[in-house]
Amino acid sequence: MADQIKLYYKNVTADIVGQEHGLSLDQFKYYTDQIAQTVNSINQQVADGKLPFRRLPYDQQMVQRTKDVAGEMRGRYDNLVVLGIGGSALGNIALQTALNHPFYNLLPSDRRAGPKTFVMDNVDPVQFQGLLDLLDGQLDRTLFNVVSKSGETAETASQFLIVRNLIRTRRGASKLAENIIVTTDPASGTLRQIAARDGYITLAVPPGVGGRFSVLSQVGLFSAAMCGIDIEGLMAGARDMDQRVSKTELVENPAAIFALIQYLFYGQGKTLSVMMPYSYQLKDLSDWFRQLWAESLGKDKTLDGKPAQIGPTPIKALGTTDQHSQVQLYREGLNNKVFTFLEVEKFASQCPIPRELEQVESIAYLGGKSLEKLINNEKIATEYALVASKRPCLTIVFPEISAYCVGQFIYMLETATSIAGSLFNLNTYDQPAVELGKQATFALMERAGYEELAKKMAASIQRDKKFLV
Amino acid sequence: MADQIKLYYKNVTADIVGQEHGLSLDQFKYYTDQIAQTVNSINQQVADGKLPFRRLPYDQQMVQRTKDVAGEMRGRYDNLVVLGIGGSALGNIALQTALNHPFYNLLPSDRRAGPKTFVMDNVDPVQFQGLLDLLDGQLDRTLFNVVSKSGETAETASQFLIVRNLIRTRRGASKLAENIIVTTDPASGTLRQIAARDGYITLAVPPGVGGRFSVLSQVGLFSAAMCGIDIEGLMAGARDMDQRVSKTELVENPAAIFALIQYLFYGQGKTLSVMMPYSYQLKDLSDWFRQLWAESLGKDKTLDGKPAQIGPTPIKALGTTDQHSQVQLYREGLNNKVFTFLEVEKFASQCPIPRELEQVESIAYLGGKSLEKLINNEKIATEYALVASKRPCLTIVFPEISAYCVGQFIYMLETATSIAGSLFNLNTYDQPAVELGKQATFALMERAGYEELAKKMAASIQRDKKFLV
Repeated sequence: MADQIKLYYKNVTADIVGQEHGLSLDQFKYYTDQIAQTVNSINQQVADGKLPFRRLPYDQQMVQRTKDVAGEMRGRYDNLVVLGIGGSALGNIALQTALNHPFYNLLPSDRRAGPKTFVMDNVDPVQFQGLLDLLDGQLDRTLFNVVSKSGETAETASQFLIVRNLIRTRRGASKLAENIIVTTDPASGTLRQIAARDGYITLAVPPGVGGRFSVLSQVGLFSAAMCGIDIEGLMAGARDMDQRVSKTELVENPAAIFALIQYLFYGQGKTLSVMMPYSYQLKDLSDWFRQLWAESLGKDKTLDGKPAQIGPTPIKALGTTDQHSQVQLYREGLNNKVFTFLEVEKFASQCPIPRELEQVESIAYLGGKSLEKLINNEKIATEYALVASKRPCLTIVFPEISAYCVGQFIYMLETATSIAGSLFNLNTYDQPAVELGKQATFALMERAGYEELAKKMAASIQRDKKFLV
Repeated sequence: MADQIKLYYKNVTADIVGQEHGLSLDQFKYYTDQIAQTVNSINQQVADGKLPFRRLPYDQQMVQRTKDVAGEMRGRYDNLVVLGIGGSALGNIALQTALNHPFYNLLPSDRRAGPKTFVMDNVDPVQFQGLLDLLDGQLDRTLFNVVSKSGETAETASQFLIVRNLIRTRRGASKLAENIIVTTDPASGTLRQIAARDGYITLAVPPGVGGRFSVLSQVGLFSAAMCGIDIEGLMAGARDMDQRVSKTELVENPAAIFALIQYLFYGQGKTLSVMMPYSYQLKDLSDWFRQLWAESLGKDKTLDGKPAQIGPTPIKALGTTDQHSQVQLYREGLNNKVFTFLEVEKFASQCPIPRELEQVESIAYLGGKSLEKLINNEKIATEYALVASKRPCLTIVFPEISAYCVGQFIYMLETATSIAGSLFNLNTYDQPAVELGKQATFALMERAGYEELAKKMAASIQRDKKFLV
């Protein structure tokens, strides 16, 4: 129990931030029954096999195979490059930042548990060319993990074509399978077919699991395992949290409390949700959450098809850094935000501050303390200042940053997303609005079948010099 | 002229996104006189020496000294560590990301123009200890640049004490000045005194220039120069932009157009301002902008002291990455955002996509194109999709990513901030709301003189188990 993450929510209540900006205990009571029903219904869906992401932590076979494949490959490569975007990248990045050394890629190889790791979730030509230049001469010692359910995502497909061509021309077609491993749909799709043809080892994007819910599948776990991250610990943490978020009693279910608070504040005009870890290691978990929350809850109609404009805007921030960037606005600007701090009780290093320059009075007080004490006190101080300005604050407390705690955190927020989706009465699992941009890209890139759209776009994308200054 | 950045704003107009969500040309006309007066008045302030950040690009002597010091030091160190936070870090980071190789620190030293560079703008104990471990054994080849106007910022002071102690105990007090260079107030303050006593080489935080406006001073320029970034190009770009943003004619002044558009949308309920570069290299410029905009415009009273809640919330996003994370929300969620894309016409690499796997129809269309073409078309496609959902969009077009263009960008947005501050009728240059959190930190860290606040806080920060789940 000591290593369970906890949600602390007193500083969102009207008692603390006042009636106008806080939630009353009556509101919590009012929703107790609805939450019980919602969680019950979600539990039922899980039991019926309808939310397969909720079963991932119990898939021992999947975990074992991930470990086996990674274990076999780990020593054979100096570099691991993940080619993926969105849900195929954000979880990988978050796990690396949370559970690897903060300067992992710069460590000498004998101080790293696995290869240097790069998650390429963009198609910036300078960045990608820069990576290729960096890897020049090391191609035989580089493993590319192409992650795409279909293989047709324009970004990942482009990267894959570049990399495949490079390996083929430099090393020969027979070597492709030495340098490429794909994570894709287990049965069908473009990438699955190519994998079969080229003979790649394959991992699975599990059927029915959307990209943003896939970090605890082989999508996120393979690169983690390659770096020696304890993926069984992640899964054990997720299973621990599964017990807690399956509870129908509101005050015992941290996912339900989190979802309800966010939902209620949205209804009260606090439509921005800021997640602010006081930990460098946790910073990319808030970027992972940003996709989960935005893509799941940003919808223009309710489940029954009524037009609406739903969805809190998730914002990633970072303590203490953003105290010197955003806190002025957070305290004095529009009171339209709810804050979620991530706090770490015990860091892996304390980083003591020595008693140095003790005669300099203005900074002598710092000596004999530690950066751990400082960062945690800065969090308390910032929350104190925000509460003084009637800004509601939540805290998710990590007893430590371990795979076990990170697994809990991920699973808690995934489940909170389901619950929030129910409260908002929307389809949590689709993303229809992404489609038009994809089609427009196809049209501009001259993919067959999109000629009509290309014509339609031609006029509207012409630049009008009158508005260019 | 060909290498001037440009602002394109047709897609914010009512003609394009409709009356409800767009701006009318009448609104622009209505503000023409006020803008002329505002720019005039700012120009007068600059002439009167009241806005010294506007004169930085003309300070040849400062640039020359920065180059001289950096030139002398560059070859002597393998590592440069900037210790600073907020305005003492964000500009440094933005310049490094924009103008260095995307994997600069991982390059072998003969492919880098300067030392490995780390900007430590946080006090995460694991991250800082991780850096110290990484630098273990290389202390004599490491230069620490301590950047703080006063030297009393708790984060920077703590880092400095740790580093000073380390150098003193490992290398001896006589070596301190070999490994530390400080950027601080030229005349007074804690760090200035310590520098004099320890004999550090010093650079200046120029008087009257706030942290968030200081990137084009030695605060931001020294680390850039150490890495071989063309700081004279930056300054030339800023001077070029100075001509443009001093113009009183609205339609000729990109800073004024930008500020006015943001101001008008804020008044129409679009209180979120998303900056979305389609370029990895430009991503940290949007983080730099985020501080500039939030801290300058997030204010709770007007200039004449009337209570208000002012300030757009700046949000950093990144194309194409965030298409797969935020665009669902951006299109279907609340229409409360104005988007500013950063577009690069010509990247330093095109990164061609070879004609590979041409028999696979679903991805064959990509062959023969380039990542440059793809990323730019994705930008057009995303803007097309947002406009289809009546979301207003601006674009800042970079002909290329050069020091000259980056200098223009920085100077344009700094001036736009002044103009926006005038339109909102607030004090652009203070940050009073940051104070309470600082004091609360002092209290919790037991600094003398803060005992009363510590007592006052004690009760309120006690955790109430009833709200812990």
